[in-house]
Amino acid sequence: MVPPPHKAETELLDHSDSLPGAIKPVVPQSHTESKPIALDLSHHLSIESKIRQKSLLKVSSSYLARDPELLSLAAGLPSPSLFPIEKITASVPIAKHESARNGLWKDDGLLPGTRRDLHKEKDSSLKGHSEYDLSGALQYEQGTGSKQLLKFLKRHTEIVHNPPYRDWDCIMTGGNTHAMETVFRMLINPGDYIVLEEFAFPETVEGLKPLRARMVGIDMDAEGMRSDSLEQLLETWDEAARGGKRPGVLYTVPTGQNPTGATMSVQRRSEIYNICVKYDLVIIEDDPYYFLQMSDYIPGADPGVVQVPKTNDEFLTTLLPSMLSMDTQGRVLRLDSFSKVAAPGLRCGWITGSDGFVERVLRHNEVGLQFPSGVSMAVLHSMLTEAWGQDGYLDWLVNLRAEYTSRRNAIVSAMDKFLPREVCDWVIPSAGMFVWIRVDYTKHPHKDNGIEAVERELFEAGIENKVLILPGTWFKVNPEARDVFFRATFASVSAKDMAVAIKRFGEVLRKGFALQI
Amino acid sequence: MVPPPHKAETELLDHSDSLPGAIKPVVPQSHTESKPIALDLSHHLSIESKIRQKSLLKVSSSYLARDPELLSLAAGLPSPSLFPIEKITASVPIAKHESARNGLWKDDGLLPGTRRDLHKEKDSSLKGHSEYDLSGALQYEQGTGSKQLLKFLKRHTEIVHNPPYRDWDCIMTGGNTHAMETVFRMLINPGDYIVLEEFAFPETVEGLKPLRARMVGIDMDAEGMRSDSLEQLLETWDEAARGGKRPGVLYTVPTGQNPTGATMSVQRRSEIYNICVKYDLVIIEDDPYYFLQMSDYIPGADPGVVQVPKTNDEFLTTLLPSMLSMDTQGRVLRLDSFSKVAAPGLRCGWITGSDGFVERVLRHNEVGLQFPSGVSMAVLHSMLTEAWGQDGYLDWLVNLRAEYTSRRNAIVSAMDKFLPREVCDWVIPSAGMFVWIRVDYTKHPHKDNGIEAVERELFEAGIENKVLILPGTWFKVNPEARDVFFRATFASVSAKDMAVAIKRFGEVLRKGFALQI
Repeated sequence: MVPPPHKAETELLDHSDSLPGAIKPVVPQSHTESKPIALDLSHHLSIESKIRQKSLLKVSSSYLARDPELLSLAAGLPSPSLFPIEKITASVPIAKHESARNGLWKDDGLLPGTRRDLHKEKDSSLKGHSEYDLSGALQYEQGTGSKQLLKFLKRHTEIVHNPPYRDWDCIMTGGNTHAMETVFRMLINPGDYIVLEEFAFPETVEGLKPLRARMVGIDMDAEGMRSDSLEQLLETWDEAARGGKRPGVLYTVPTGQNPTGATMSVQRRSEIYNICVKYDLVIIEDDPYYFLQMSDYIPGADPGVVQVPKTNDEFLTTLLPSMLSMDTQGRVLRLDSFSKVAAPGLRCGWITGSDGFVERVLRHNEVGLQFPSGVSMAVLHSMLTEAWGQDGYLDWLVNLRAEYTSRRNAIVSAMDKFLPREVCDWVIPSAGMFVWIRVDYTKHPHKDNGIEAVERELFEAGIENKVLILPGTWFKVNPEARDVFFRATFASVSAKDMAVAIKRFGEVLRKGFALQI
Repeated sequence: MVPPPHKAETELLDHSDSLPGAIKPVVPQSHTESKPIALDLSHHLSIESKIRQKSLLKVSSSYLARDPELLSLAAGLPSPSLFPIEKITASVPIAKHESARNGLWKDDGLLPGTRRDLHKEKDSSLKGHSEYDLSGALQYEQGTGSKQLLKFLKRHTEIVHNPPYRDWDCIMTGGNTHAMETVFRMLINPGDYIVLEEFAFPETVEGLKPLRARMVGIDMDAEGMRSDSLEQLLETWDEAARGGKRPGVLYTVPTGQNPTGATMSVQRRSEIYNICVKYDLVIIEDDPYYFLQMSDYIPGADPGVVQVPKTNDEFLTTLLPSMLSMDTQGRVLRLDSFSKVAAPGLRCGWITGSDGFVERVLRHNEVGLQFPSGVSMAVLHSMLTEAWGQDGYLDWLVNLRAEYTSRRNAIVSAMDKFLPREVCDWVIPSAGMFVWIRVDYTKHPHKDNGIEAVERELFEAGIENKVLILPGTWFKVNPEARDVFFRATFASVSAKDMAVAIKRFGEVLRKGFALQI
């Protein structure tokens, strides 16, 4: 497993990872002295974030920690005996799938593996059954989220990203939209500029507007945000002309970007990171689709048969390095979520960053959401630590990405078959849930009406022809549209429906552009 | 049940409330034309809140609603077949307790009633088993929270508070700390003044500081915030001297206030409401302890035997009216939470207010938490609609408040026995989880050191004597301390430990004030 253990430090670890399916404990190398300390980037904090203080109530728990004989009349916690939920049982699949390990995965319409019932009871820790019982999960929790679940997530983050500086940490969130709001408020004062991709998730844009952030969208190509455009923007930034200082924050979805489906290459990631070092930007790496990186599309092959790595070590080597994994300075705030790899309804994710930034998030959590749902955390804790372990979770992710790969294959195969290449093109997505179709509006009979009018006409003709596919301008960050685009998802539609829908969209294009049918 | 049905409108209702334990459907009178429409109070919205817009992605679902034949490549929802949780079972008590209905409740150390296992499966709605299945609970949800759970909560709100204007609504939150942050950001611009009680929950104060709200704490007496002090403040407000306009927002915890335990009488509530009408303030009614209103303390009686109402109708008449129930103008934003009446780990609550305000909260939710955990909502939905119904939930609350009443009785009984009345006094709390002890520092040998020094000395002597009880100044809103106070909780400590802890605190006071032991 990556990274290899340093024997001298093995004794520092406890052994609670030694649960069924867990990988062998390895050293938290991330915290060893061979790595640098994060830079002090506190000059990036917003006014709001700088003001945040620890509540005195948090201080009172330190007295209790020091003296176990102390009787407390302090914390206003309800009595766990009065929580009306005595037990929660979650039934989860065991992700191990032997056929996957033969290098091929076959879509059989169901998740592979057997089921297991996991129980959380109120008083199980008293019986020694669990380190995190239902009494704890239903009670008030620290602003970090459950320390037992967080421990698993930190180890996972270390295995996958191994941040190359010493003082990094993780803190839990209510999913990435919640995490976005939190880090935006931490880093942006009203009027500040922020850079992001020229197309973005509308909730990102709608979340930034009320903060009165000024957005600059950077040109994208097949690999996402263009580093040359970013560098040019920063190099030629004219404070007077822009009416504001150079952006201090870059927001990016580097893998399977929403809406474009673009994934940055290693080189692109490295270039973007280095530009942010040069011009002192904090990077918000919003990466919910990271584990939905896919094997190559093979034209003509059965979409349901997917190549998979034979081992988890091999799986990890197939994944593109995150920007966190390149970050020697602590300038990346990485947002991870369970929404795409488990379920959005859990409203649970985590932020990884330097101790300094994570502590500011903690102060915000304490006076906001406080912590993600304990019921969500209890279910995740059972599933991840008791049923799966670190290796079992990677098994799950291998299967999940094979499933999404087969869906990607299905939509691309339908596009090959039904879309008129004379007037449209696309990049085959290598991650995520979306494909982005560029339509050459200059060939459209009504091109003189302008980009947005042509796009609108095609969108409405789609509705008329019973296919809903979203116009690119709904996602644009900058005021000007520069081409006609449509976003299609392959996440939750059956292969059969995808083919019908794409066929209908092909008809719309043929009719709109007056092509031969 | 209150309010009585209007027969003419009964056919407007659907019958999904007709589940086991549910009360008979009654008319949503709250929306009838006999009630006034809320005032337009949009001039109270913050700059941030006014800017919020609906994301275009939300528009796309309206197309799907209009045409069921439309095939969608629009929404980037993960496939429910890939959610790794197949089934969740929650074991909950049935709250019905016959002995409670004889008018007396006896603490037997356990929650009364039998247990019931409630199941949520991924595809149960397909089988017609549930209106809200696990596939829905684990998926992305609207910013309102689960509409099925929300329907129950609106009906509950109507039964208990029956807001006297027509266009009110509810929206779900991640608990009251999350709700507080949301409504503060909705109503307060940096530099704005807000009024609140002179003592407050520290997380409220720490949450307001980063928003650069300027806080004015209003004097309190045994009934909480003083209406005469409030009126005087507003009447004599001097913009120039204060460097800002008159406060437009009042924040209050009217029932079992944290930290003082004070509960406003009906008259006080009415006075405060009318002052807010006169001076145009929006009222944030943060009321998590509402159902922990207690029967009277009877000195010398067995603390574990509690008078309880014989019926739920009688129960409802014993509850003080909320400010929401007096609000004919839509100027109250009421915050309710499951943290004190079910479990804080659920991170689930709801806001009730005018359509106009609720819509602004919705826009914020969409770019923040989005919605409370679906796992929490699924468990609550099962418990409230399938196991309990409206009447069963009231049964639960009757039992819960009897349990807290017996705890309150136990601490007050210990205080009667062990605290030296020569130097301290208190108001017996009639709701909540806290008792507030005033200590007469003018009799302390070190009184010349000042209030805070005496308080600190007593606090530290407490730690020394193995009792942790929180100093009043930790909760003060205004810079100046005006007396020595301590807050004690009876929420989660056993009667035995409470007696020992109070005895220890009595020793601290006797020693500190050099009284006879």
